[in-house]
Amino acid sequence: MEHFHEKMMKRAIVLAKRGIGRTAPNPTVGCVIVKDGAVVGEGWHKKAGTPHAEVHALRQAGEMARGADVYVTLEPCAHFGKTPPCADALIAAKVCRVHIGMVDPNPRVCGEGISMLRSAGIEVVVSVLEDNCRSLNEPFIKHMTTGLPFVILKSAMTLDGKTATAGKDSKWITSDKSRQYVHKLRAKLDAIMVGVGTVMADDPLLTSRIPAGRDPLRVIVDSTLRIPLSSQVLHVDSPAKTVIATISDDEAQAARITASGADVLRCRQKNGRVDLHDLFVKLGGLGVQSLLLEGGGALAGEALRCGLIDKCMFFYAPKLVGGEGLGPFSGKGVELMADAITLKNISITKIGSDILVQGYPENACLQV
Amino acid sequence: MEHFHEKMMKRAIVLAKRGIGRTAPNPTVGCVIVKDGAVVGEGWHKKAGTPHAEVHALRQAGEMARGADVYVTLEPCAHFGKTPPCADALIAAKVCRVHIGMVDPNPRVCGEGISMLRSAGIEVVVSVLEDNCRSLNEPFIKHMTTGLPFVILKSAMTLDGKTATAGKDSKWITSDKSRQYVHKLRAKLDAIMVGVGTVMADDPLLTSRIPAGRDPLRVIVDSTLRIPLSSQVLHVDSPAKTVIATISDDEAQAARITASGADVLRCRQKNGRVDLHDLFVKLGGLGVQSLLLEGGGALAGEALRCGLIDKCMFFYAPKLVGGEGLGPFSGKGVELMADAITLKNISITKIGSDILVQGYPENACLQV
Repeated sequence: MEHFHEKMMKRAIVLAKRGIGRTAPNPTVGCVIVKDGAVVGEGWHKKAGTPHAEVHALRQAGEMARGADVYVTLEPCAHFGKTPPCADALIAAKVCRVHIGMVDPNPRVCGEGISMLRSAGIEVVVSVLEDNCRSLNEPFIKHMTTGLPFVILKSAMTLDGKTATAGKDSKWITSDKSRQYVHKLRAKLDAIMVGVGTVMADDPLLTSRIPAGRDPLRVIVDSTLRIPLSSQVLHVDSPAKTVIATISDDEAQAARITASGADVLRCRQKNGRVDLHDLFVKLGGLGVQSLLLEGGGALAGEALRCGLIDKCMFFYAPKLVGGEGLGPFSGKGVELMADAITLKNISITKIGSDILVQGYPENACLQV
Repeated sequence: MEHFHEKMMKRAIVLAKRGIGRTAPNPTVGCVIVKDGAVVGEGWHKKAGTPHAEVHALRQAGEMARGADVYVTLEPCAHFGKTPPCADALIAAKVCRVHIGMVDPNPRVCGEGISMLRSAGIEVVVSVLEDNCRSLNEPFIKHMTTGLPFVILKSAMTLDGKTATAGKDSKWITSDKSRQYVHKLRAKLDAIMVGVGTVMADDPLLTSRIPAGRDPLRVIVDSTLRIPLSSQVLHVDSPAKTVIATISDDEAQAARITASGADVLRCRQKNGRVDLHDLFVKLGGLGVQSLLLEGGGALAGEALRCGLIDKCMFFYAPKLVGGEGLGPFSGKGVELMADAITLKNISITKIGSDILVQGYPENACLQV
């Protein structure tokens, strides 16, 4: 029977995934309703402001929902938002039992939906395939529990760990397929961030160059406002904004930047540079749940050392620089190998001829 | 039918693998004899000086060999060595057809076995699963065709490509399982090589610390004979020799080293250091078919740039140094990313918590 429950939750997860990248600021949620061993209703949350997964599934199930088992990847809501509480809808439908992937990560409402269901006499089973359900909503959970965006570091390097040659040449390390993969990833995330050094070296567009791809907010960390005014990122034709994060009080330069259409975001300073934690708090406050950090090494190193990177995506191309070059992190590394920062939940994927290794730094700060 | 032939050759490959690490200086070979769709004989080469794979399989098949199909991973020999020619044995047994994985890599006898069989009216099919058959005998083939050992570079690093911290601390990067894997690998290879810097930094034993593991020849590249006389590698209790490769003519220091039981091997110089190509020619002349290069970075970088590395084995631990540190190759890397050295035939294996990526540098020199 355990096996059957997990199978149904897996189906709910598959449904939830259809909403990934479309539901912000809401989480992605999937729901399956089962009566007498048969699926009678399915649903997923499609877009903020539209019905939740449970409502779609209940509508499909109709009268069959009575006495049914419900599998939902996230605790049903207990409050009126843009739609009425799903817990009420489940109670009204007289379902028998609700299997929940994970409780609501919002510390203020966590467990309320479960309480409502139980008070109404409905059996509730929690934490069914919880890890899988959590992975559906990593940005939502991080943002909800800490106010900070979920930060993904993306780095492309050779198998000897070089992101560029000693002469800083880096075009191109990885294959077309990997670069395409990154463009798709950009379209799913709320913001993309690079240091001003990367802007000056590569003059990137930082857009999602895929058909119908949604551009993320572009964040440039530029402590001294030295970004060249001709940079493409200040003039790109995109519905998304460019934000220059700085500690400079050069009003004239800021005015020139804002005149190009970009925003200037003043942050606290730390060691004479933008305090990344403060910047992430500010971005979180602007509703940025997820952020892709694409370099360069100085910014990535600082973010890693501050425990601000939640996930690493390392693309390795099957090639070697074979000597000195630049690595994904610059600045001061750990002194002893025993103090190296461990990555957990490693996964490995082949992307064309490249290898994508993903993992979660164990030093990530999960509290504000 | 194609499928059946490949299945039988795969079986011959499985048999051949049983001899890996035991047949030097001979190649590993497997043989399967099939009559009326049924396997009637199997064999593999177990040890130099003992019967070849075909002889074992023919003995098992007995009279059933007449009119049978033979699958053998390497072209049957046509000459008298320590045992009589296998081509003669196959002809005498009146087999009908011989399927061969790869022709003999020895340029002097290549194709002779095939000619003998065909002259006797036996049908011969060549290059059946050739890539798989070649991979059984990479060291043998390289040594036979070039006189040089097949050189495997092994490097252990973090996911950000660091083999040590900036302060040169490297203990330990990878897991017990990976280190155990390397000890097993050492037992299968003829020689292991490090630079004197690694000896001075780590004072390694360079033995195969597994039960009944065969120790490889230990080669230390030490251009100036600066190896400390107290180094473990000069005094280790091992049936295998330690060889110090040098360009120094310091007879007194050489005498002290040889007094410890190690050999001193004088090589040509190149840019004031040991000419690695010359060293490998000399080692090849000593019968070293396979060599494991374990670092450090200067030696690995020089070997790579000279096209002397045939295969790379990179062990990545799921951790990050997060800033400056040492990489697997030091010295001058390529100037442009477009000139990076490509690795082909990449394979990825999980070894405990580590990731082993193996590949073959495309710049490897396959000619003397």
